[in-house]
Amino acid sequence: MKAAQLYRFDESLADSELLVLEDVSEPVVENPTDVIVRIGGAGVCRTDLELIKGSWCNQMHMQLPMILGHENAGWVEEVGSSVKSVQIGDPVIVHPLGGIDATRRQSIHHWQAQQRGLYPGFNCDGGFAEYMLTEERMLVILPAHLSPMDIAPLADAGLTAYSASRKASEYLNPGNCVLVLGVGGVGHIGIQVLRAISATEIIAIDKSEAALDLARQVGAHYTFIADEKYASKVLALTRWQGVDAVIDFVGDSVTIERGLSVTRRGGHYFLVGYGGKLSISTLELVISQKSIMGVLGGTLKELRELITMVDRGLVTLTTREYSLSEVNWALKNLIEGRNSGRSVLIP
Amino acid sequence: MKAAQLYRFDESLADSELLVLEDVSEPVVENPTDVIVRIGGAGVCRTDLELIKGSWCNQMHMQLPMILGHENAGWVEEVGSSVKSVQIGDPVIVHPLGGIDATRRQSIHHWQAQQRGLYPGFNCDGGFAEYMLTEERMLVILPAHLSPMDIAPLADAGLTAYSASRKASEYLNPGNCVLVLGVGGVGHIGIQVLRAISATEIIAIDKSEAALDLARQVGAHYTFIADEKYASKVLALTRWQGVDAVIDFVGDSVTIERGLSVTRRGGHYFLVGYGGKLSISTLELVISQKSIMGVLGGTLKELRELITMVDRGLVTLTTREYSLSEVNWALKNLIEGRNSGRSVLIP
Amino acid sequence: MKAAQLYRFDESLADSELLVLEDVSEPVVENPTDVIVRIGGAGVCRTDLELIKGSWCNQMHMQLPMILGHENAGWVEEVGSSVKSVQIGDPVIVHPLGGIDATRRQSIHHWQAQQRGLYPGFNCDGGFAEYMLTEERMLVILPAHLSPMDIAPLADAGLTAYSASRKASEYLNPGNCVLVLGVGGVGHIGIQVLRAISATEIIAIDKSEAALDLARQVGAHYTFIADEKYASKVLALTRWQGVDAVIDFVGDSVTIERGLSVTRRGGHYFLVGYGGKLSISTLELVISQKSIMGVLGGTLKELRELITMVDRGLVTLTTREYSLSEVNWALKNLIEGRNSGRSVLIP
Amino acid sequence: MKAAQLYRFDESLADSELLVLEDVSEPVVENPTDVIVRIGGAGVCRTDLELIKGSWCNQMHMQLPMILGHENAGWVEEVGSSVKSVQIGDPVIVHPLGGIDATRRQSIHHWQAQQRGLYPGFNCDGGFAEYMLTEERMLVILPAHLSPMDIAPLADAGLTAYSASRKASEYLNPGNCVLVLGVGGVGHIGIQVLRAISATEIIAIDKSEAALDLARQVGAHYTFIADEKYASKVLALTRWQGVDAVIDFVGDSVTIERGLSVTRRGGHYFLVGYGGKLSISTLELVISQKSIMGVLGGTLKELRELITMVDRGLVTLTTREYSLSEVNWALKNLIEGRNSGRSVLIP
Repeated sequence: MKAAQLYRFDESLADSELLVLEDVSEPVVENPTDVIVRIGGAGVCRTDLELIKGSWCNQMHMQLPMILGHENAGWVEEVGSSVKSVQIGDPVIVHPLGGIDATRRQSIHHWQAQQRGLYPGFNCDGGFAEYMLTEERMLVILPAHLSPMDIAPLADAGLTAYSASRKASEYLNPGNCVLVLGVGGVGHIGIQVLRAISATEIIAIDKSEAALDLARQVGAHYTFIADEKYASKVLALTRWQGVDAVIDFVGDSVTIERGLSVTRRGGHYFLVGYGGKLSISTLELVISQKSIMGVLGGTLKELRELITMVDRGLVTLTTREYSLSEVNWALKNLIEGRNSGRSVLIP
Repeated sequence: MKAAQLYRFDESLADSELLVLEDVSEPVVENPTDVIVRIGGAGVCRTDLELIKGSWCNQMHMQLPMILGHENAGWVEEVGSSVKSVQIGDPVIVHPLGGIDATRRQSIHHWQAQQRGLYPGFNCDGGFAEYMLTEERMLVILPAHLSPMDIAPLADAGLTAYSASRKASEYLNPGNCVLVLGVGGVGHIGIQVLRAISATEIIAIDKSEAALDLARQVGAHYTFIADEKYASKVLALTRWQGVDAVIDFVGDSVTIERGLSVTRRGGHYFLVGYGGKLSISTLELVISQKSIMGVLGGTLKELRELITMVDRGLVTLTTREYSLSEVNWALKNLIEGRNSGRSVLIP
Repeated sequence: MKAAQLYRFDESLADSELLVLEDVSEPVVENPTDVIVRIGGAGVCRTDLELIKGSWCNQMHMQLPMILGHENAGWVEEVGSSVKSVQIGDPVIVHPLGGIDATRRQSIHHWQAQQRGLYPGFNCDGGFAEYMLTEERMLVILPAHLSPMDIAPLADAGLTAYSASRKASEYLNPGNCVLVLGVGGVGHIGIQVLRAISATEIIAIDKSEAALDLARQVGAHYTFIADEKYASKVLALTRWQGVDAVIDFVGDSVTIERGLSVTRRGGHYFLVGYGGKLSISTLELVISQKSIMGVLGGTLKELRELITMVDRGLVTLTTREYSLSEVNWALKNLIEGRNSGRSVLIP
Repeated sequence: MKAAQLYRFDESLADSELLVLEDVSEPVVENPTDVIVRIGGAGVCRTDLELIKGSWCNQMHMQLPMILGHENAGWVEEVGSSVKSVQIGDPVIVHPLGGIDATRRQSIHHWQAQQRGLYPGFNCDGGFAEYMLTEERMLVILPAHLSPMDIAPLADAGLTAYSASRKASEYLNPGNCVLVLGVGGVGHIGIQVLRAISATEIIAIDKSEAALDLARQVGAHYTFIADEKYASKVLALTRWQGVDAVIDFVGDSVTIERGLSVTRRGGHYFLVGYGGKLSISTLELVISQKSIMGVLGGTLKELRELITMVDRGLVTLTTREYSLSEVNWALKNLIEGRNSGRSVLIP
């Protein structure tokens, strides 16, 4: 089958052929719970750039070459002997991380299995290919009128946005105010989720006017350009108390410093983006009684809930389709910020 | 009346007379909700040293001279015209911060009042005196056999320990493991609270063997000296997964770095002590999905719950009594670490 | 001032003059925390009929004659000496029950005060009058463009609907399903709240087609007439699992029996309406692991949140205005079901 | 192998041979996730009597003959091809109901599988035998020094007690008060759990003085005989406010009526026992804002937590051993109340 493989890390992302398109052997069912998915669409994500740069190399014990692609949807092609919950031909989306959720931790053994676990597109072959191998427990069957190529990015970008927004909404009552930092492929889903499951006021911040337009379209109540002046505007809007929660989809050092400065006493800061450093005096953190939480992906239950919301039109996703053979072009466009919406590779 | 006043900040704490003992006029009832408390005991706290050094000067808009003392208990001496919940002669403990709890925030107006609020011993006269002024809503009546001089330190040290341990216990099920960093006047109460309201395993860390002895006496299951080797011991104990929660009563930079390094993926870090800096890469925080929460004091409801626990013998407190005129000696002993247990001034 | 007083209970509600309109002396400020409100509007509620019938007589130790009216809004007319959070002229809504919320229970003394407490319109004079006496802590200041006469019914009908829907929403994730029983003045607010703070699917049931029209207008996804066949329709909709939660604004015996029969295993039943009897075998309740919760009114915090939602257009309320002298006509129309929307008396 | 089979329902429990001891063929591994457990001990439970009487016949679609026994522990004898988390020879306890917990509901497919599910001892062969068939996901490996015959009753009686007490403890803060109704094999574990994970005061009620002795031994603070006078004693103890929560391990009509009468406004009633009828006016339930929850068994996570507590000595269990061939004698002793502690059959 055709597949796009990573052969070597490239911290500069300068190479014209970041991934190598070639023919590889198809995956085969080995264990009773294995499932082969025929890929319908595979989302291209900023994390793919980090993987290519080698940023996750140690965390994930990556061994090259490997097929990238962790936002995968398609159809069940073949199943192991004990698989009951999906049937050949079912349209499915594939959960990316195999359950780093707290509920799974219930089972010590399960957890240990995960610790040694395989995360397609991170430390074993992913979905930039015609077929991929996964396990029964990673799959959510799609409702009738959702197509795998349209919703593949929900598997990671969407799920992360949903999980962070859902967690934040637990602290957001009517009359409260949330700050969304970064309105890209992830952030614009977060805003839609916040609109659907809370009655909080949403302030969105981004460097680009186009992103702020998008923010307003999907439901932000207030939008400001991400310059040094936004903090005082946010404080004024909240009568100098600060926002009740922040969802930071950017995560660089300046973003965090400014974001924390407008978080109210006792407020909650959800960190989704990464790249910078969090640095704060303990006296300040203690006096202000703020909480800072790292958020990565989401649970299978959350993926199911998100799919339901998309199915009912509460969340919509803009995608741009590329054929699998255009993968390096799609990556270049992502590097250079030329994509509006999320890129999806179609084999 | 006699009172110990702070006349000038002294960052070195070198002066032999940090506070000045002198005669001042007694406080008077001005508002319908005012209450005058005759002090039975006033705890001496490490935060008093920080106040003398000037660390809180800007946060609290301190104006000198003022009477320190924020851990106060005594008897109701005089009440304003609308006071109904306490009567003259009632033994009471005084909540230190006037309700920075979330429930109070319900009332915008109330909150605004607090923002301008008066915190005895921080920005208005406290309890290192014969009498102090407070408000009806700050008072908890003591059970019959608890005496104000014995329990005064519960108002702040005890309350902080209780609040942090209670918050942590929400994440601690049987079989889980919590790390307590620092077993001084605050930490040793925290361990007792954890024992009483959870079935978690408790690992205590301190620089001093005497403190670890105390930790074991009050219920810690494992204790280690706070050197560079404790992290690997804690990891081994938790089968290399890390602890489920940390309560950090120290809060210096090294403590935090080590404490976070042994917190499990998805674990919770409660920061109570202060002095150092929290510094962590956002990639690390996101991948590990840890939460870091600043904890300061506690609510009136929590103070009531703590008093109940002390009344029933679930938490015990070691104190050393000084007369009010010995205040500078008590402070010196605190600076030089010569107190075991908590110091209380008796007017 | 003019006021409508209850002189004797009338279980049949047959009297043509259920309340007596007459001149009474105006209330006066006695305590430092007292506030006199000039009534702008007072909602007429089904509970007023129950009060007239004498159903609450023992619960509330009612002594006649008294002025009814527990859904009150207006302007601050006069304040006691310690009142700081409202000023003369402020438009306000008056919380009806003075805080039977859990947070207040924190304070034992406070609670005891409440136990002896005064609930205007229930056991002391209410708002069917030109002025009424209340306390500072019962008041929420209205946003600029909400008028007291338009929003008075939020004080009880709205607050109850909000509190029940908010509690239910804690158990309602996207993809879940909630059943709303009864779409009258309370239920139609409940549906709007559910739409605003959850992404759950809403099934509404009522005896009247007009009520189901209203239910669809305000956001119900499915509606069925309250006959013996609705249960099987609801089960079919939920793939024979039953709904995740029920909010029962009716509370008669048949409603509860049917409602519980379509609640899924482990589901939650919020009982708001009253009049019937709950009767269920313990084996059934244990095997099905259902929870049944009584809901009455809401907290001051919830009233504030509801006001915010109305202010932002997320909840709208249909009212019909009567002058205070038309009170008996308004009551008759309520008895005979001739009101669409909520009646409000204007002094 | 030897097994005790139920051949016909006997509502009177009068037959001298309620179960028939005979030789049957051993279970075999059919599916990749199957596990055969060699039984070390199987608890005898009051629910076995109800199963023999036919009370659960319709709920469980029971088909006779079948082997009873739903509190099982032993050693792994044989495993299916995909089993990884247990190995042959591991000592294990078997979760009885296969996960009717909310977290499992996450997976629609999983849930549907359960709906068709097999519950050993209820609708397929259980553990009153030498071997039984179960699935990998039902097993918890025992710590080194816990023996299957000693802890088998934890699988259901212990788990139910733990789950109910854990749920109740979420509402029980220091200073609160809980009422435990019934101190038998289940209730006396409940009291131990409450002691270990909360600082609440425990009042225990039972018909028998011996049970109240046991209650005091395991940590109840107050005990009263279950007569018509206990309610006023409980109210007096709680200063006429009522208890914050009730755990009802009896569940007959009188117990519930009395138990609810001493539950405070806004309190929680956990119903574990069954047999009677819950009957209450909706007005009373609404005004009192009480919650009533049915509790059945517990989750796999809770079973793991309970095993941890037993391992650490926080919960102890008194058992009486019978050989499997004495099963009918054990049942008779249970019917006639001649067992103190829980009976366990040893094959």
